[in-house]
Amino acid sequence: MRIALGVSYLGTAYNGWQSQPDGKTVQDKLELALQRFTDGPPINTLCAGRTDAGVHGLMQVVHFDTDIQRDQNSWVRGTNSYLPPDIAVQWAAEVPDSFHARAAAIARRYVYVLLESPVRPSLEANRVGWVFRPLDEAAMQDAAARLLGEHDFTSFRAAACQALSPVKTVQRIAISRRGAYWRFEFQANAFLHHMIRNIMGCLIAVGHGHKPPEWIDEVLAARSRDAAAPTFAPDGLYFAGPVYEPHWGLPERTASFDLLPG
Amino acid sequence: MRIALGVSYLGTAYNGWQSQPDGKTVQDKLELALQRFTDGPPINTLCAGRTDAGVHGLMQVVHFDTDIQRDQNSWVRGTNSYLPPDIAVQWAAEVPDSFHARAAAIARRYVYVLLESPVRPSLEANRVGWVFRPLDEAAMQDAAARLLGEHDFTSFRAAACQALSPVKTVQRIAISRRGAYWRFEFQANAFLHHMIRNIMGCLIAVGHGHKPPEWIDEVLAARSRDAAAPTFAPDGLYFAGPVYEPHWGLPERTASFDLLPG
Repeated sequence: MRIALGVSYLGTAYNGWQSQPDGKTVQDKLELALQRFTDGPPINTLCAGRTDAGVHGLMQVVHFDTDIQRDQNSWVRGTNSYLPPDIAVQWAAEVPDSFHARAAAIARRYVYVLLESPVRPSLEANRVGWVFRPLDEAAMQDAAARLLGEHDFTSFRAAACQALSPVKTVQRIAISRRGAYWRFEFQANAFLHHMIRNIMGCLIAVGHGHKPPEWIDEVLAARSRDAAAPTFAPDGLYFAGPVYEPHWGLPERTASFDLLPG
Repeated sequence: MRIALGVSYLGTAYNGWQSQPDGKTVQDKLELALQRFTDGPPINTLCAGRTDAGVHGLMQVVHFDTDIQRDQNSWVRGTNSYLPPDIAVQWAAEVPDSFHARAAAIARRYVYVLLESPVRPSLEANRVGWVFRPLDEAAMQDAAARLLGEHDFTSFRAAACQALSPVKTVQRIAISRRGAYWRFEFQANAFLHHMIRNIMGCLIAVGHGHKPPEWIDEVLAARSRDAAAPTFAPDGLYFAGPVYEPHWGLPERTASFDLLPG
């Protein structure tokens, strides 16, 4: 039987999502908790989208196969009782064997939260990016619109990126603010490694007036990492989860979405 | 010369505000940073309202006396460069010697953030209180209204409370929500030790239907700690700062206020 889980986590204390020999990743903590709860053989999970060190999860989705029968509430509460305080399963669902957390995702969503303040973060350290000079919203909206649609995003791609193609389709970039906090929402069919942090670096360069909005066209056309701004901090980046076809019947959000400013 | 500072902090890692021999308090970190920045004798700060272990500060206010001349930006940035990431001075102002951070406060404000969800906090661990059953807003509003005005709050007072009188005037309790997150705002001329955590315990008892709203009248009339609900968790409690007469010209809020849900 195949089980899907929605998982929220604060990435600050972990070396990213993907399992590593030192065990200090979110996947390691989740798989250990699942094994303890089921008291059986190791459980291998497959996730919708791996996150880097310091990046958070509003709704990661994983699937795994098991012979163990538990009701949905038991999977949630039982697993959570073995997870550290900064990771929690939000929902569980039995899914057909044809469901695959990564392959079934028709799009991915990310949110970046950015503090604009003369003073660095304190209460929200590690949870928000930070700029100390004011940002020009109209200029950033103009720049963001230039990234929409299908493009070769080579200029926004990390050297270590393993994606087969640099061509992705950005479906949505929404920029809003609530007081000192900016919220940038991104949706694409898929993202390249560091793509959002590289886009954030460029949007901020435009927002600060270092570059005009049309510069984004040049960066896209250059197809070279050197053309774009430096990779921005991971601190404010949240994986908001995959988008699946409605027929799978899976939740689209978690309670944590209501925490986001903007 | 007398300087006032507005300070934000996440209380999770500290044994409360007030200085202790082990040095693991917010006051200790602040005074150490001030001494390092000024490179002179120890600086003793006096705060508007001490917070307990695990309680956060949206805008603590302190004052201290010094002979050292720095402009306001220097006090902020210089001190912050010596503070840990979860504490930051938000503003600095030179004030007359007649200003006193505690004595000049004509009221105090607190906010409690509460997650209502079947699943425990993860991303927001240590920053929100948690209930897993739904709360009845109308019942809680009714209960809260009964606490407004001048009352003897002995039933809501910790045994260790050092206040001269248990009679306080609650000026405002505002209850709102944003999705799964409730926000409770409190303002009073002053609060007794644990008063808000004890009020929260009672409001939640009413919100869950364990007690009717009129029970609050009984609790007040009893003037006995045994009459009230258990002290609720510190995790979701934020000191939102003192209220001063406008003539002092001090800021009334910090950027962090925009982070609050509700």
